Amino acid sequence: MTFADSKELFTVLRFQPVRHNLDSWEEFEQSADNIKVIETEAKNRDEFITQLKNGDFKNVDYIARTFQSVKQTGRFDKELLELIKKYTNVKAISHCGSGYDQVDAVACRELELQLSNVPGKVNDATADTNVFLILATLRNYQQGHNNLMAGKWPTAIQAAGTPNGHCIQDKVIGILGMGGIGQTIRDRLAGFGVKKIVYYNRSKLSPELEKGCEYCSTMEELVEKSDVISINIPLNANTHHSINKELISKMKDGVVLVNTARGPVVDESAIKEGLKSGKIFGYGSDVFENEPNVDMDFVSLPNVTSLPHMGTHTVETIKSMENLVLDNVRTFYKTGKVLTPVAELKGAPFMDTI
Amino acid sequence: MTFADSKELFTVLRFQPVRHNLDSWEEFEQSADNIKVIETEAKNRDEFITQLKNGDFKNVDYIARTFQSVKQTGRFDKELLELIKKYTNVKAISHCGSGYDQVDAVACRELELQLSNVPGKVNDATADTNVFLILATLRNYQQGHNNLMAGKWPTAIQAAGTPNGHCIQDKVIGILGMGGIGQTIRDRLAGFGVKKIVYYNRSKLSPELEKGCEYCSTMEELVEKSDVISINIPLNANTHHSINKELISKMKDGVVLVNTARGPVVDESAIKEGLKSGKIFGYGSDVFENEPNVDMDFVSLPNVTSLPHMGTHTVETIKSMENLVLDNVRTFYKTGKVLTPVAELKGAPFMDTI
Repeated sequence: MTFADSKELFTVLRFQPVRHNLDSWEEFEQSADNIKVIETEAKNRDEFITQLKNGDFKNVDYIARTFQSVKQTGRFDKELLELIKKYTNVKAISHCGSGYDQVDAVACRELELQLSNVPGKVNDATADTNVFLILATLRNYQQGHNNLMAGKWPTAIQAAGTPNGHCIQDKVIGILGMGGIGQTIRDRLAGFGVKKIVYYNRSKLSPELEKGCEYCSTMEELVEKSDVISINIPLNANTHHSINKELISKMKDGVVLVNTARGPVVDESAIKEGLKSGKIFGYGSDVFENEPNVDMDFVSLPNVTSLPHMGTHTVETIKSMENLVLDNVRTFYKTGKVLTPVAELKGAPFMDTI
Repeated sequence: MTFADSKELFTVLRFQPVRHNLDSWEEFEQSADNIKVIETEAKNRDEFITQLKNGDFKNVDYIARTFQSVKQTGRFDKELLELIKKYTNVKAISHCGSGYDQVDAVACRELELQLSNVPGKVNDATADTNVFLILATLRNYQQGHNNLMAGKWPTAIQAAGTPNGHCIQDKVIGILGMGGIGQTIRDRLAGFGVKKIVYYNRSKLSPELEKGCEYCSTMEELVEKSDVISINIPLNANTHHSINKELISKMKDGVVLVNTARGPVVDESAIKEGLKSGKIFGYGSDVFENEPNVDMDFVSLPNVTSLPHMGTHTVETIKSMENLVLDNVRTFYKTGKVLTPVAELKGAPFMDTI
């Protein structure tokens, strides 16, 4: 019996920020008499757990969470999920993001909590950020901008004293992780005249999905062949610090690395060392090991281009992600099943990202 | 009778910087007994003119100039070209750049001085800079980076407080000037899922060159249709301040403008006004009206992304441009004709760019 059929009260605990579809939520809430959306003012995990234990959420059936709400609850780890199971009626959780490393998916399965993410919707915006960072890092654009802003142009007339960068043309691009985002990056690069694209993935793609890219069966093989390495693997127990000192030692001299996945898939101290020695030409990243508390020494290196996790930071993308969260809630209300359950539960996420 | 045939002394006055092909110049110089390459230490136009009048260059047959050497000579305007004609044997001039607004091409023709530029070679690197600036400006990346570096991320957890940008997908891109660079940008954008590309050019391209882009017969038509306007017209007497207050008033609200052509094709004060009023969402530019002396108030606006003329600033591009200059010199030595004479002499350049 679904909530739509039973007319039983359906309560959703919704986390902020909801930026571009509050009107759609309101419509959903008013579409039936038995739908109620509540929020929490909890400022941290302790306060949230106190509210849970107080029974503030005892009627909650569904949680719609966000990347930013980790500040209010900490990670949805086994401890928190067990408390949710004990002190609420929650049967399903939606995460407003593609990477769901903030939620212990294995514990969800064990506790019979459905878990959905918003795959696909983030591909375009994240791939564009990735291409931006590849160009920025190869070309020293950030350094150039900084030199201009520092007033160096009039005296250092040639690009304000910025060292020559490199063209993307005729380079071998290695895509580490050929999921939706990796494939979208591959499509973006079609018009740039790169030499070839190689990729590493747990499994080789079908020729139709490969579109002429060359499969590497190990990460080592990929990094040995690549002039530019694009990091697009999810963060989980198997991928933590995948890009480490040993793997870097196998890369070409003067390699360019770009990360729009998650900070902790790289060992930042090893990257730092590689940048200082010149082994790595540049590092472009949208994500950091301890974000939002970044290592300022690291991001101040001239050959680091940094962004504050802006991969999906567009009106259009956030709206479509938020709409898909609401579609999951609506579908669960009507059918008892979320619309886009997380694709796999192997390699359980374990890191706190914030 | 060519220099190669006559064995007469062939003297080239070569301007710095020559960054990546000095070895090839040396090879050329040693390839025959009658080739001599000289340089000048002139620090400004007055010194250069004094040297000219002193007869320091009286045996010079060929001048190989650079964008940066404008600091030593000022613009190759009619006055200077007449002095060159009077005090040297110069018959040909090579400019190491695609845009040759630093040289009065009409005066060259009148004085029977051959003039060559390096078309084509700059297309890839400039188009990539252009795509970078489109993404940067649409997505507010520079603002995000600045906020991160200013330490704002820990308190403003969502992209360090940066406003949401916009996706390039489903946008109408207007390319103003569909020459080699414009066409290369069009090719780059093929993989980005834009809605359509419209272009303005003095003449409509053939369908094969158009590749599905839509022709606008006036600049006004182009700006009325475009969400993003890419400025790719050369600077000359007809294009100075083409992007002015009147044209901006015809653009869509929230338009994005990108300029990798020349600063003076836009009226920066009109852009500034448009950015402040919100008419223009963002301006991304590699070139400025009074570069290298930029208007710091202008480039400090949060929605301006600026680069210090880095369009061609790569090892690979500069090397290939410098090689093409030398190919022009070599071809002239052998045949009496430069290899890549400038394509057209209409709309004579008239601006001092530095």
